[in-house]
Amino acid sequence: MRFTSRTSSDGVTEQFFTLDEIPGVLWTPEGAVGTRPLILLGHGGRQHKTAPHTVSRARRYAAEGFAVVAIDAPHHGDRPQNEEFGRIAAGMRAGMAAGENPGALVAGMHSYLAGQAVADWQTVLTAVQRLDQVGVGPVGYCGMSMGCGLGIPLIAAEPRIRAAVLGLLGVHGLAEDAARITVPVQFLVQWDDQLVPRDQGLALFDALASTEKTLHANPASTGMCRRSKWRVRCGSSSGI
Amino acid sequence: MRFTSRTSSDGVTEQFFTLDEIPGVLWTPEGAVGTRPLILLGHGGRQHKTAPHTVSRARRYAAEGFAVVAIDAPHHGDRPQNEEFGRIAAGMRAGMAAGENPGALVAGMHSYLAGQAVADWQTVLTAVQRLDQVGVGPVGYCGMSMGCGLGIPLIAAEPRIRAAVLGLLGVHGLAEDAARITVPVQFLVQWDDQLVPRDQGLALFDALASTEKTLHANPASTGMCRRSKWRVRCGSSSGI
Repeated sequence: MRFTSRTSSDGVTEQFFTLDEIPGVLWTPEGAVGTRPLILLGHGGRQHKTAPHTVSRARRYAAEGFAVVAIDAPHHGDRPQNEEFGRIAAGMRAGMAAGENPGALVAGMHSYLAGQAVADWQTVLTAVQRLDQVGVGPVGYCGMSMGCGLGIPLIAAEPRIRAAVLGLLGVHGLAEDAARITVPVQFLVQWDDQLVPRDQGLALFDALASTEKTLHANPASTGMCRRSKWRVRCGSSSGI
Repeated sequence: MRFTSRTSSDGVTEQFFTLDEIPGVLWTPEGAVGTRPLILLGHGGRQHKTAPHTVSRARRYAAEGFAVVAIDAPHHGDRPQNEEFGRIAAGMRAGMAAGENPGALVAGMHSYLAGQAVADWQTVLTAVQRLDQVGVGPVGYCGMSMGCGLGIPLIAAEPRIRAAVLGLLGVHGLAEDAARITVPVQFLVQWDDQLVPRDQGLALFDALASTEKTLHANPASTGMCRRSKWRVRCGSSSGI
């Protein structure tokens, strides 16, 4: 784990790092010492580890005492994109323009990324928990949309994650992994989502095996633009 | 408005009253002076104004500075039951035992009660807001199950109510009134409710015309027993 920068402001220390070619950011309370709960923030499709709402949330949680880490998903942010990813992304866009089932198209993309994304998160989690100011405390995961699509296989595979905030995605391709998730989950649904049909989002919530799960739905009708404005409260809601 | 008792403990004053033969309870912070937000608590079917969870919530909100009022619904609690109500209630129970649609049966009961219940709440609201320690501040309504079934026609008819927490009920018989509600609403759904089919609860949320509405769903599978354990957070969630 190689830290490439470190700045502190408003009581929060922000450190950029790379680990096995995974670019990431770690936020901790300034002067933090000792073990603390850790929140993993998974960004959405075509976004990256320092998208404005990711950073603002991360800083807020860190100011409250959490450690927070975000990484670029494979082929996102500062990571190289290979040709195959380019073909899949172009195919997804073309399919959407042609009116194909967006749930299936998005699921295909997430499926392509998930194997690497899960391995990345597990590597980063192990490394971050070795830091004195993080330690082996409880871990939560928060991700919407693609952050949910990559988060569900991660949480299904990763017993260190004890709670999650997920949502803004349908069940397509995720039912099997969702049925392996038993940790508490807060799940967000946009009631009038242009990308995710309501029944598909409800079906993903339904598929989670967690006995402690809560669905929060809010209306919106302006599609992706509105989706990015969701006020996600990972730190206060994940129960970690 | 005739107050029949007054006791104070733990910083909350509890006053029983009758008004036009409507029995009610008013909770206010001890020593309260001046206008404050008011929460109307509507109880569930076969319950009453001093059901334990109604009282505990009321006392909590009053301790936080709210005024809170609960009244017995028509034919409930300390109010007389007439023969017609007895027949309807017996018919509802018999229909449920015979496997008839519980949504339709419950809606029939609520429809029988709603006219009087709405008039009762409007009378009580006017009287309570004349008290020095309540005044004409913002008003919220909170009611689950029958409290929702009587609350929806009330809120549709009553512009003084600015926010509501509703739920644990299906759309049967309520779509028209729900479509007249435009205030912010938090709506609770029990994901595996034995009494209210999931799609009926979601349809009632959908029918609300409010642009600011949020649905919170949680799983449970033990029917009415579990329903009564809902942790409803009217005061913190209604935005009044």
